[in-house]
Amino acid sequence: MSHAPLLILYVDSHQEEYVQTLRDWVAVESDSSDVLKRPDCHRMMDMTAEKLRAMGGKVELVDIGVQELPNGQTVDLPKVVTAQFGSDPSKQTVCVYGHVDVQPAKLEDGWATDPYNLTDIDGNLYGRGASDNKAPVLAWIHTVEAYQALKIVCDLPVNVKFIIEGMEETGSNGLDAMIMAQRDSFLSDVDYILISDCGWLSRRPALTYGTRGNCYFFAEVEGPKQDLHSGVYGGTVIEPMTDLIGILDTLISPSGKILIPGIREAVAPLSDEEWKMYQDIEFDIESYKSKIGVSQLMYNNKVDLLAHRWRYPTVTVHGIEGAFSAPGTKTVIPAKVIAKFSIRQVPNMDPAVVKKQVTDYLNSVFAKRKSPNKLKVTMVIGAKPWLADTKHPLYEAGKAAVKRVFNVEPDLIREGGTIPIAKTFEDVTGKSIIMLPIGGFDDGLHSQNEKMSRYNYIEGTKLFIAYLHEVAHLKKN
Amino acid sequence: MSHAPLLILYVDSHQEEYVQTLRDWVAVESDSSDVLKRPDCHRMMDMTAEKLRAMGGKVELVDIGVQELPNGQTVDLPKVVTAQFGSDPSKQTVCVYGHVDVQPAKLEDGWATDPYNLTDIDGNLYGRGASDNKAPVLAWIHTVEAYQALKIVCDLPVNVKFIIEGMEETGSNGLDAMIMAQRDSFLSDVDYILISDCGWLSRRPALTYGTRGNCYFFAEVEGPKQDLHSGVYGGTVIEPMTDLIGILDTLISPSGKILIPGIREAVAPLSDEEWKMYQDIEFDIESYKSKIGVSQLMYNNKVDLLAHRWRYPTVTVHGIEGAFSAPGTKTVIPAKVIAKFSIRQVPNMDPAVVKKQVTDYLNSVFAKRKSPNKLKVTMVIGAKPWLADTKHPLYEAGKAAVKRVFNVEPDLIREGGTIPIAKTFEDVTGKSIIMLPIGGFDDGLHSQNEKMSRYNYIEGTKLFIAYLHEVAHLKKN
Repeated sequence: MSHAPLLILYVDSHQEEYVQTLRDWVAVESDSSDVLKRPDCHRMMDMTAEKLRAMGGKVELVDIGVQELPNGQTVDLPKVVTAQFGSDPSKQTVCVYGHVDVQPAKLEDGWATDPYNLTDIDGNLYGRGASDNKAPVLAWIHTVEAYQALKIVCDLPVNVKFIIEGMEETGSNGLDAMIMAQRDSFLSDVDYILISDCGWLSRRPALTYGTRGNCYFFAEVEGPKQDLHSGVYGGTVIEPMTDLIGILDTLISPSGKILIPGIREAVAPLSDEEWKMYQDIEFDIESYKSKIGVSQLMYNNKVDLLAHRWRYPTVTVHGIEGAFSAPGTKTVIPAKVIAKFSIRQVPNMDPAVVKKQVTDYLNSVFAKRKSPNKLKVTMVIGAKPWLADTKHPLYEAGKAAVKRVFNVEPDLIREGGTIPIAKTFEDVTGKSIIMLPIGGFDDGLHSQNEKMSRYNYIEGTKLFIAYLHEVAHLKKN
Repeated sequence: MSHAPLLILYVDSHQEEYVQTLRDWVAVESDSSDVLKRPDCHRMMDMTAEKLRAMGGKVELVDIGVQELPNGQTVDLPKVVTAQFGSDPSKQTVCVYGHVDVQPAKLEDGWATDPYNLTDIDGNLYGRGASDNKAPVLAWIHTVEAYQALKIVCDLPVNVKFIIEGMEETGSNGLDAMIMAQRDSFLSDVDYILISDCGWLSRRPALTYGTRGNCYFFAEVEGPKQDLHSGVYGGTVIEPMTDLIGILDTLISPSGKILIPGIREAVAPLSDEEWKMYQDIEFDIESYKSKIGVSQLMYNNKVDLLAHRWRYPTVTVHGIEGAFSAPGTKTVIPAKVIAKFSIRQVPNMDPAVVKKQVTDYLNSVFAKRKSPNKLKVTMVIGAKPWLADTKHPLYEAGKAAVKRVFNVEPDLIREGGTIPIAKTFEDVTGKSIIMLPIGGFDDGLHSQNEKMSRYNYIEGTKLFIAYLHEVAHLKKN
């Protein structure tokens, strides 16, 4: 890669421009979970398409239909942006997948800065969606821009396609169907799928070879026809909140054991090889504890901890809709309460089976209470886990690129979070996937004060440039 | 009461004016639980004082100090309005207690109309605070106005004092001290305390001789230093929400049995006499069920149901602050969650003892979980129950007034809700109290679509007029 110094120089000299573009993108409140923010999501997709079009890409905004709301109404899904740079049949073709929607964020959740105003503090760029996933998407775009700018000396070494969506944070609604529909058209000549929607485990760069899936449930308990005064009615009605707490308390034991029959039995056993890999990974339990601010973790050795983060399922209760949630006091008996909880999926769990296991279990637990209230369990997200072969040439290319840019061997890691579409890409196209993260280990995805460091954003762009160079030298299928 | 027809005519002919005043009062969002609404609370007290002053009352706005917020800051408490009409030592002196603060309400909670825009639908006046307690306070004011207007033929038969506060809905912060301070001044010549901060049990008018108290608790579980991504961290941390649900689930059994040791043991046993009184009360279980919209109640016979509504304690979990409570999905592990629950107090429970029982119990249950998270239990309201003697002449006067206006015998009932100050009035002044409700049984206090019917508002005013006439004939102490 003899022209590497030029490309590096190009990236370094465009740093401020990259940060400004990220600032423009973060300023759009593309929160896909909030229907009221849907116009912002549409605008975000338009901005993405515009950016790629201005670079000379062959760009389309693909209509993927509508989303049905719980009240029966429908709203348009954000269109999916596809783009193509280069169509040389002698070159490899990669398809970069990313998303530009974000998790909810409000200043009053405990952000130190306005979540939609990218704020640089000591080289960290704070803002909702900065790391998840706007900066990585932009880093791929800057990669293409850099090669284009230096076209005379080093042309884009592979054909690059993009699929950028706007519903990832709520389960990639509509994307599965679109991928299936484009299998024999847009995706037909793609050799590899590249995804950078995750982060490193430590300060050491990493390649990711697995993600957990996610089954997200609503458990709704409905009682009286409206909220009641707890003094006037308390003691005479069977309260939905009591029922809901009762059934939620049967999901998981204090020590983290999932109590839903069949879930633990489905999990693939931990192999000796895996155990050894986990042993070798750079991971400091003390710094992990201090980063999240707890005195004790669920497990106190590295292997158990990593295994339960990556390759075992877990249950989280996120919260309850319909109950009193404001500061202060209110003496209400909430009439209808909806718990939100999710179970992270791992091989060999199957979301369809999990849906039945959870529904049956909660219904049976609820039946034992003999409550007149009504329980309705629905699974609103059912995303499968994904697992790659770390011996695949794509990963060898990844190791070489990391070595070139950072001069270290990457950690081979899995991701506790979910990139719902990875499994679909694999199943539909039959092509191999690599996850090439550039986010930092402490970026605070989905939390208050999410950030992307300038270092990871800029060096990450260089990593992608190096990676395309490596991929160009893989044997064409 | 030979001038009764004139007074009735006066009230009927001023109906629209009364409704308009109620509309003006409901328009003020005097939500005492929300510190941001404190200016509205202050304005509400000013409006109340102004109204009483315009009627020629001797009015004071009594400064009762400041409220300390959880963050250590302080805000001014709404002043208490005192007023006096008449000081004839040959007459009885009554003191009407009421409040003009309200529970929280937002259109999106499920109100059919704007909660702060009094809306007349088929003779029902919908609005937050309409029944609790603005219309009853106004009905007492209209009572004085009516006697004043007809002064030439029928002067105010008793001296009337008012104590109107603005913090009732959050525990009457500061009022206890003020009552104690005014025991030998403003309250020194008061013979009876009249309170109309409750409702009838059915369509039959009622006199209320007891209320439950309320101990309101916050149980806070704090874990990581900030919210975490449930994919990235789920399985490695002991989640505060799991702990909180676990301890909440130990408060009450599915059948409504309170599980906190010592609570049930403290309750006064149900006497045969009480049992008989309950038997005689007009109360239709089927219409109660259909009103609140449930197919089954906690008990299916009248006596058990009324007893558990009025004279047994109950636990309600109102909600959780700090968890995800919005519609849609969010894959968060909340870092700090605060459950809000309350226990209604009855004779012979003692809030100080209950505080210790609950705190000790939750701490012991939490300790068994061996969680590294931190639990903090605080009691933010501790209001005592109140119980009167139904043989007292005040109640005989009440029966006579009800008979005169409605031509029926009133039900003698208790109230499941709390009027925190009743017990204080009794303890400090040593005077007798009567609760004379005019609110309807279906007014939806603290719920969506709270209302006061025109019928109850107007006939209730007539009841108060008749009641003052009856009280005037009680033997002066």
